[in-house]
Amino acid sequence: MKKTDHIGVAVKSIEQALPFYTEMLALTLIKEETVESQGVKVAFLDAGNIKIELLEPTRSDSPIASFIEKKGEGIHHVAFGVNHIDERIEELKSKGLKFTSDASKPGAGGAQVAFLHPKQAHGVLYELCDHSYNGGDQHE
Amino acid sequence: MKKTDHIGVAVKSIEQALPFYTEMLALTLIKEETVESQGVKVAFLDAGNIKIELLEPTRSDSPIASFIEKKGEGIHHVAFGVNHIDERIEELKSKGLKFTSDASKPGAGGAQVAFLHPKQAHGVLYELCDHSYNGGDQHE
Repeated sequence: MKKTDHIGVAVKSIEQALPFYTEMLALTLIKEETVESQGVKVAFLDAGNIKIELLEPTRSDSPIASFIEKKGEGIHHVAFGVNHIDERIEELKSKGLKFTSDASKPGAGGAQVAFLHPKQAHGVLYELCDHSYNGGDQHE
Repeated sequence: MKKTDHIGVAVKSIEQALPFYTEMLALTLIKEETVESQGVKVAFLDAGNIKIELLEPTRSDSPIASFIEKKGEGIHHVAFGVNHIDERIEELKSKGLKFTSDASKPGAGGAQVAFLHPKQAHGVLYELCDHSYNGGDQHE
């Protein structure tokens, strides 16, 4: 693990939540994008040494939509930046940790991502995210 | 706001949660302390560029105890590091933001802290924390 990359925050509407961050807290909006495969629109804000990622569901079967329905708006996950994500996943699996899916997959911002199962993390959803992924062929 | 200082995570037992962080994720435990005024025992872990603060309630009327009762274990707050916290509070109040208490107060790790009301932050509890507080006389 290199360092903490971002905090993911589930919101009903990025448009409605954004002024709190950009006007009140005076954070800079880095970029917005839609990750159709995960049913989310995201906005990244610069929070100094890490980013805040606002996550808005784009459809009702999105994991973010069900999170908001169950728990309301709020912090959804914390992401650690890693290199060689597939090796890190194997390493953590060998220590007995479980992931929410079998393999890493493309996430927002061009990163390759994987999520640790929150049960073992005492209720926190931790993400691994690799910004220098090159298709799984990362040895050497 | 200087940068993100730490993420606070509510746990039932630091002793039970710690191995996930120190053994599985291989994070370093920085220190543990009890903040009796807030009814919590805390453990700080080094997560690279920020800290993870585990919060365990020491009594049943602790805010962390009621958080866990309502929402279960999980992420409790995100803290931004600031200088001159009392000036920052006045600045944010003048923009229309509300705080959970009228004035800043001593928190864990010798910091002076204040919490923004989570309603305006779309469900997230944001803390301001000042590690260089000198009793409110901070001008110049």
